[in-house]
Amino acid sequence: MHHILSASQFNRATILTLFTTADRLKQERRDHGVLNYLHGKLVYLLFYEPSTRTRTSFGLAVRYLGGRTEFTEAAGIFSSAAKGETLEDTIQVLQSYEIDALVIRHKERGAAAAAAKVATIPIINAGDGDGEHPTQALLDLYTIVSAFPTHNNLTITLCGDLKHGRTVRSLCRLVIKYLAGSTENWNFIFCSPPELAMQTDILEELTAANIPYKIATDLAQTLLTTDVFYQTRVQRERFPDAIQGDAAWSSVQASFALNAQNMATMKPNAIILHPLPRVGEISPEVDTDPRARYFPEQTRNGLYIRMAILLTILHPKK
Amino acid sequence: MHHILSASQFNRATILTLFTTADRLKQERRDHGVLNYLHGKLVYLLFYEPSTRTRTSFGLAVRYLGGRTEFTEAAGIFSSAAKGETLEDTIQVLQSYEIDALVIRHKERGAAAAAAKVATIPIINAGDGDGEHPTQALLDLYTIVSAFPTHNNLTITLCGDLKHGRTVRSLCRLVIKYLAGSTENWNFIFCSPPELAMQTDILEELTAANIPYKIATDLAQTLLTTDVFYQTRVQRERFPDAIQGDAAWSSVQASFALNAQNMATMKPNAIILHPLPRVGEISPEVDTDPRARYFPEQTRNGLYIRMAILLTILHPKK
Amino acid sequence: MHHILSASQFNRATILTLFTTADRLKQERRDHGVLNYLHGKLVYLLFYEPSTRTRTSFGLAVRYLGGRTEFTEAAGIFSSAAKGETLEDTIQVLQSYEIDALVIRHKERGAAAAAAKVATIPIINAGDGDGEHPTQALLDLYTIVSAFPTHNNLTITLCGDLKHGRTVRSLCRLVIKYLAGSTENWNFIFCSPPELAMQTDILEELTAANIPYKIATDLAQTLLTTDVFYQTRVQRERFPDAIQGDAAWSSVQASFALNAQNMATMKPNAIILHPLPRVGEISPEVDTDPRARYFPEQTRNGLYIRMAILLTILHPKK
Repeated sequence: MHHILSASQFNRATILTLFTTADRLKQERRDHGVLNYLHGKLVYLLFYEPSTRTRTSFGLAVRYLGGRTEFTEAAGIFSSAAKGETLEDTIQVLQSYEIDALVIRHKERGAAAAAAKVATIPIINAGDGDGEHPTQALLDLYTIVSAFPTHNNLTITLCGDLKHGRTVRSLCRLVIKYLAGSTENWNFIFCSPPELAMQTDILEELTAANIPYKIATDLAQTLLTTDVFYQTRVQRERFPDAIQGDAAWSSVQASFALNAQNMATMKPNAIILHPLPRVGEISPEVDTDPRARYFPEQTRNGLYIRMAILLTILHPKK
Repeated sequence: MHHILSASQFNRATILTLFTTADRLKQERRDHGVLNYLHGKLVYLLFYEPSTRTRTSFGLAVRYLGGRTEFTEAAGIFSSAAKGETLEDTIQVLQSYEIDALVIRHKERGAAAAAAKVATIPIINAGDGDGEHPTQALLDLYTIVSAFPTHNNLTITLCGDLKHGRTVRSLCRLVIKYLAGSTENWNFIFCSPPELAMQTDILEELTAANIPYKIATDLAQTLLTTDVFYQTRVQRERFPDAIQGDAAWSSVQASFALNAQNMATMKPNAIILHPLPRVGEISPEVDTDPRARYFPEQTRNGLYIRMAILLTILHPKK
Repeated sequence: MHHILSASQFNRATILTLFTTADRLKQERRDHGVLNYLHGKLVYLLFYEPSTRTRTSFGLAVRYLGGRTEFTEAAGIFSSAAKGETLEDTIQVLQSYEIDALVIRHKERGAAAAAAKVATIPIINAGDGDGEHPTQALLDLYTIVSAFPTHNNLTITLCGDLKHGRTVRSLCRLVIKYLAGSTENWNFIFCSPPELAMQTDILEELTAANIPYKIATDLAQTLLTTDVFYQTRVQRERFPDAIQGDAAWSSVQASFALNAQNMATMKPNAIILHPLPRVGEISPEVDTDPRARYFPEQTRNGLYIRMAILLTILHPKK
């Protein structure tokens, strides 16, 4: 592993190695506090659009491993980009400053791959527009696999805005890579209003990989058989024109929201995930249910998956 | 002490312990340079509105104690808040990243207390709108007490915009806590244009605590008996409509400004404080007078009070 | 050396000492990784306008020497400046926080000098409007001197917007200081559209220093005799009104752009520099030519010159 650009670059072996590394780092942090693997290493966080959550978890991942960070969180406004500098030039300038790796967040699909083309140091994609967000997919899958030590048969329901959601698309692709060559039987349910249904490219990839899926619009019915419920935000601004308007949006959102009432039908050992932030599609009353795992478990796993990636890239012997 | 939310949570004993700790840390810094008490600790600075001064002094306080920080300085624009995430969710996400304490600055009163409700880690209020700014009050009182080793009788004049000023209100409340049960006799003079007079809630609290006060509008007269002169900024935008206009504002500001001429009547051992920034209500000619203590003494005390708070919360054994 | 405010404060001896220190630090980094000279030192980066490149290279310079930084990158918007605080007050507050040095970037000429007047700690000018940017001139000269170990006779061509460019003006002034008292013969060619010609103050200073120069408008002709080609950006917004318009600007920019075709006439051991960012005045096809030194060599030299300055100021014994 050198660059981390796409969920598709992984296979079952590399995924499992990362998860084992994340497990080990959790244990080492409990035993020793601050680790020292990245002593003297400098990781640059180049954020062309703000993302406090992702930047913070990458920044802390570096520090908890003993390394240091430098960052800009609005490179699109602040840096030379505003004067017309190309991304490729920016990367070449930054790596001339002898940094050890660069984490990039950009609003355009393909930006991380473009950066990697001119880079002599490892590039980590922290989200490139509607493209990929591979570390999010990894932390999601890590949370699923950790929650079900034997996970031969799982029904994963993805709910909300499946049409525009970058995270649900990446998760499907990572699951395809994870299951390839295994005997495990997982299946997906895509639960959303028809206007926000999962796009056909993903459906075709699942079919090609022999992974069954169902399309659903009835949340209560869906919850009965779900092992992993992955909820996402219905972004108001992306709501189809035809049913535009707050009333329409609110009504759709309410139909697909998880609350104390409809989750009563869920399996007792199911888990509830959300890439966050949420704005109402999971009621706060759900938070105290032991099946709710979006925080602290899922978010903390984001920290450890990023630590595992950084350690693997920058300190492969450990 | 776990959370630091309000000046009212302290009593004379906890205040004096903090001041002793601040004194000790000054000495230890002189003797040893960087201290190591917070080795391995990570303090997150969550600033919903920019405040370079407060963020810097908290950030340096952490580092001078050997700890590390991560921050965002415009969480209101940059973070998930812009997507509708609640403050409570933001806190839960950040603490899942295994941070050790969180310093919060927010434009709404009560935000720090709301954060503390869901927090499993200590929350420090670095200013919540027109609510509280307890570390400012502590550094102000620390500067007063340090300047008058025997301080049985003090006349403290608060001057400027007493109606809207968060710092003068917090200082009054902290003094009430500090004097409770002691035999010291302090009194206040509130010197301001009538439109910007101290609000009655504070006056009533002082009366209930048996602390005398006077209302004044004549600065020169007031200065004659003052031991501690605490000047504040008259914010142009808050100036009452009735006398709106630059001329009116300038005239009022001039009447309550401290300069070489009117400070000639001050006691030789009086001290002059200001929470800063200033924009003219203390003339620069005053800066070199030994009675002027706003910098470096008062501002540096802000650093040490914050170090004392962080040490007490995160490393109570030391 | 205490403050670093202007290229004019240096002489040949102080310049050569800095270059030797930069050379030595390169070697020490290769041998030892992170150095420890600034252990316990805190350098504040006070940026009133964003400049990711300059802030990053200063920030990394501090860290690679073992020190720590605190920064604000939009002090003009975020800090107390927005409330009317003077620069002098801001400096006094920050130094009361016991920082060890302050790097300042400001949009007004003279800001760094004004800061130095009230400062008890070293001030480093990281660009003050159309005034000076001394560390840029030092890194440019360091790159030139390093590329030509024997540099008795050099023709330096400065190209592009010579009228408004801060870097070309500072470089001329530093070269004057560097050559004073030496037997080396350098000469300048100023190659630009007449509307953007080098201003007469610099021309007069060169004449007074006995350094020959020529004015040119034909790039191809100029390249034949050039040892150091220093290209700069023609800023669209500064283009003279008379020939305003994208077509006019593009045509002028094209006439002075370096590309594979016209650089074929350059000497084989010439070098090409650029302060960056570029927006087309050097074609990307030039990047792979060994004569192109803008990255990584010139930019990396910026890092080491800043390390040398910080070491000299903060740790003069080493």
